[in-house]
Amino acid sequence: MESAIPAHLATARTRHKRVPDDYQPPYPSFVARYRPGVRRVVMAYFGVQYRGTAPVAATEALAEIAERFAAAGGPSHWDRARYLDQAGHETIVSVGYWDDIARFDAWFEPVRESWTGKAREGIGTFIEVLRPTVARHETLFSSPDRAEGVAAIAGGMSGEVQEHAYWGGMRDRIPLSQTDPMSPGGHPELIRDGARLRVKAQDNLCLIRSGQDWSDTEASERKLYLDDVEPVLREGMDFLRDDGLAIGCYANRYMQVLQADGSVGEKSYGQSWWKSLAALERWAESHPTHVKIFGAAMKYLSTLGPSAKLRLYHEVTVAEADEQFFEYRDCHPRTGMLATVETLKV
Amino acid sequence: MESAIPAHLATARTRHKRVPDDYQPPYPSFVARYRPGVRRVVMAYFGVQYRGTAPVAATEALAEIAERFAAAGGPSHWDRARYLDQAGHETIVSVGYWDDIARFDAWFEPVRESWTGKAREGIGTFIEVLRPTVARHETLFSSPDRAEGVAAIAGGMSGEVQEHAYWGGMRDRIPLSQTDPMSPGGHPELIRDGARLRVKAQDNLCLIRSGQDWSDTEASERKLYLDDVEPVLREGMDFLRDDGLAIGCYANRYMQVLQADGSVGEKSYGQSWWKSLAALERWAESHPTHVKIFGAAMKYLSTLGPSAKLRLYHEVTVAEADEQFFEYRDCHPRTGMLATVETLKV
Repeated sequence: MESAIPAHLATARTRHKRVPDDYQPPYPSFVARYRPGVRRVVMAYFGVQYRGTAPVAATEALAEIAERFAAAGGPSHWDRARYLDQAGHETIVSVGYWDDIARFDAWFEPVRESWTGKAREGIGTFIEVLRPTVARHETLFSSPDRAEGVAAIAGGMSGEVQEHAYWGGMRDRIPLSQTDPMSPGGHPELIRDGARLRVKAQDNLCLIRSGQDWSDTEASERKLYLDDVEPVLREGMDFLRDDGLAIGCYANRYMQVLQADGSVGEKSYGQSWWKSLAALERWAESHPTHVKIFGAAMKYLSTLGPSAKLRLYHEVTVAEADEQFFEYRDCHPRTGMLATVETLKV
Repeated sequence: MESAIPAHLATARTRHKRVPDDYQPPYPSFVARYRPGVRRVVMAYFGVQYRGTAPVAATEALAEIAERFAAAGGPSHWDRARYLDQAGHETIVSVGYWDDIARFDAWFEPVRESWTGKAREGIGTFIEVLRPTVARHETLFSSPDRAEGVAAIAGGMSGEVQEHAYWGGMRDRIPLSQTDPMSPGGHPELIRDGARLRVKAQDNLCLIRSGQDWSDTEASERKLYLDDVEPVLREGMDFLRDDGLAIGCYANRYMQVLQADGSVGEKSYGQSWWKSLAALERWAESHPTHVKIFGAAMKYLSTLGPSAKLRLYHEVTVAEADEQFFEYRDCHPRTGMLATVETLKV
């Protein structure tokens, strides 16, 4: 049993973790382990948005970003996923991950100019980037043998960690929680730069990507997931997408991961922006929509036990204001973090 | 909005509460307010145990303790409840509450001698007492106009308090949590004193009495409670009674409150002894049996909203070893805290 907080980030605590030192989690979980030299990671979401069938410009944009990703300085890992947003716009997001800021910065500037610097026929584009220090970031995996998201660039997984399977584990896995409550500071602000709209976010904004992979499940388990768990998960994701703002969820996307040929695969993830880690904690712990998700997942896992082939993971970041970048071009006003500033302006 | 911790028990924190200062609970709850002069409360459980129909000695014992309760020095409030224990023994518990230790001590010594000092034909008797400082104790009520249990001696209720409706609220309402993790110390030990068996418990043993009162509900709400909530609650209570020890629940009784005429009323409570507050927290937050209870209660309350007539309350104490007293006479070896030491001895 090891701590989710890597040894080189352990520090003298001014804040306690939520469980006693002899706490034993009831089942195993694992976290990504970066090389100790990694100080920051980058997660960059490049979005394309359109109504109806894909315009030529959408296909071109997707090919373009894939090419940029493959070029020198590109991400160590990337994936692509889709969803239909609350305004009925098809949204395809290509997400790249880096563990070297200098490499990312050199790569990013021309890519940004190209992605949001020009109008494209019939589509909107956006960029959402976090570049947190590793002390502001945590991951969790139900099994150690298939990394997803940012963990794919980590190069390794921990053994079984202690800080999970209790409410508050998410916070306790973030190294900064040893000394900092990570309270939100200020409000997101809109910055107009011609046709580009940027959102200047606030200190301690929170991002979660929380995924499931049912590709290894067999007949009866697959049916259980698709019939009993997925609909409840979808209901919670829809609530956050449509009505999340009142409880501090700025934006939520329930994404279907796309395979190399562009078809929908057997993986999905929820990606959401939150006012604070505390707001995410409150929803997860006590909102009826997540209590239902949690109940369905508990029932599923207690039915299947260790034989479950469903894979679950998440990554959570609490970023400083200057670790964030949000830019939108020709997107509707409720896209991503724009929804926050548009609503707050009224 | 006020703190559940009364102003005169607020102290400089070395441990943080689990929610930010601007946390707003989603619905109102209330706590008992003792007069500031009250330093300790006493909760004393006097049990009678037998198999099958009530022996004469049981009826006599119940009349006797009621008489003692009514005499000088007796409790400011008491109630009585029954349950069938895991060994099939009918158990009737009369519970008295005091807010004056000197008065209790003077009253208790002869009552103890009488209650467990002699054999009674066909029945066992037991006494379980806590006398915590008010800093080691908290209550919670869904509405402020009907006190139950220890709160009935408090004389008043708070306005709406902040520290509830999140996991960790129970701990945050206990004043001692400002500075102390309340970790369990040592193990319960059996002390034989002739036919009397005492259990010397450990520091930071935890007691919860958690009750529900459906006497005000009308037809459809009553049906919803009895059909959808109560069976799930019972299942969880049975789990704790039969299999709780492995997760730190030393004993659990799911009690039906008795009315003045001895008949079963429309109130019940679970009363359980725990190794630690942390063990109780873990069960409540993540054990499938309580996740189901929580889910059923959430569904019930979100269906009914503020029109719900069901009343919920609890009281939780984390007691030092010298604030505890457990004594059993002619009881079977799995009665109350005896189960713990009998099991530990094997």
